[in-house]
Amino acid sequence: MSLPLLQLALDHTDLDAALRTAELLHHDVDIIEAGTILCFSAGIEAISRLRSQHPNKTLVADFKVADAGATLAEMAFKAGANWMTVICAAPLATFATALEVAGRYQGDIQIELFGHWTTEDARQWRNLGLTQAIYHRGRDAQAGGQQWSQHDLDAMQTLSDMGFALSVTGGITPEELPLFRNIDVKAFIAGRALSDSTSGLATANQFHQAIANIWGKQ
Amino acid sequence: MSLPLLQLALDHTDLDAALRTAELLHHDVDIIEAGTILCFSAGIEAISRLRSQHPNKTLVADFKVADAGATLAEMAFKAGANWMTVICAAPLATFATALEVAGRYQGDIQIELFGHWTTEDARQWRNLGLTQAIYHRGRDAQAGGQQWSQHDLDAMQTLSDMGFALSVTGGITPEELPLFRNIDVKAFIAGRALSDSTSGLATANQFHQAIANIWGKQ
Repeated sequence: MSLPLLQLALDHTDLDAALRTAELLHHDVDIIEAGTILCFSAGIEAISRLRSQHPNKTLVADFKVADAGATLAEMAFKAGANWMTVICAAPLATFATALEVAGRYQGDIQIELFGHWTTEDARQWRNLGLTQAIYHRGRDAQAGGQQWSQHDLDAMQTLSDMGFALSVTGGITPEELPLFRNIDVKAFIAGRALSDSTSGLATANQFHQAIANIWGKQ
Repeated sequence: MSLPLLQLALDHTDLDAALRTAELLHHDVDIIEAGTILCFSAGIEAISRLRSQHPNKTLVADFKVADAGATLAEMAFKAGANWMTVICAAPLATFATALEVAGRYQGDIQIELFGHWTTEDARQWRNLGLTQAIYHRGRDAQAGGQQWSQHDLDAMQTLSDMGFALSVTGGITPEELPLFRNIDVKAFIAGRALSDSTSGLATANQFHQAIANIWGKQ
């Protein structure tokens, strides 16, 4: 099991503020994500400027695509994204067209899991060739008090056993990482914990320390 | 039953092209939509410039929000949107926070129906106070040959009976409108049929003519 990576989600409404945060933290994170909020605020410029500023960093366009998979994938990958998210509610045709475009750019598609989805859906995604999924405790659900549950952990385990590399997100803190000890996590995604804090660098290091403590020993 | 409206969806990747299309067609449509593609391309400027150019037109931000309902609603309504879309896979908390912000701007939230959703979901949306839903034959599903089916029409009828005003979209043509004869349609949404064609104005008029023929007699 390789060590989980740390992904910085930039959910700023101001692109310059997002770029400053990325500049400050890029040495201490493995992946940079242009969050949905940032993308709707600044448009595709969010991707292209992050790419210019960080030419060698894995960059995610968190578009949560539901339709028009080819057009949005073309836009994201052309601007420099490595990965683009597609929401699980999207039709299979949207996954297929997005994945086809991603392949031409040596990029990848991540399934963003929200709401209702089934093991049969997951089987069809795997059959299409998808290998990455994002398990999400929604920002609003989390604000409403929803905790990580055994149901969440079991669902992650099922996806992991089916061959999906999982990224995990939703107000996650270094203290919560032991919960995911038995899951093959690709990345932990943190936003405000890293960027809204004067102690973002320290928090990044706490994540890396916790990751090394838990997964480094296995 | 009031006459269904006609909504122009702008899914351009270039904002100036979208603004030109809106300028050309605004007298012949009832509602203008900044589509997801346009919003990810140009950012929130898509909403604010359409609002400046058409100060009195109903304007939709097709964000298909899945999370961060309050932040994205604040962004959309502040820039001048009247309605914002939230995808059905979003948690109830996202609908609630988006609706709360919409209320402060005299705006509204439209549920964008994609993938799996249940009658129980619809009941919970109504209980929250939501009254608008968008029934969607996805662009990619449509390109894959998916037609309007009895299942679609039955689902629309159920939602309509529950008190939802329905907007209908997905490569719809004036010739298909009789299919929806018995449903209380709020708006028909057309994109490429209106904007990608040299005959956009003529197509708009065919829509209005078909609407008058079918619903004007009732």
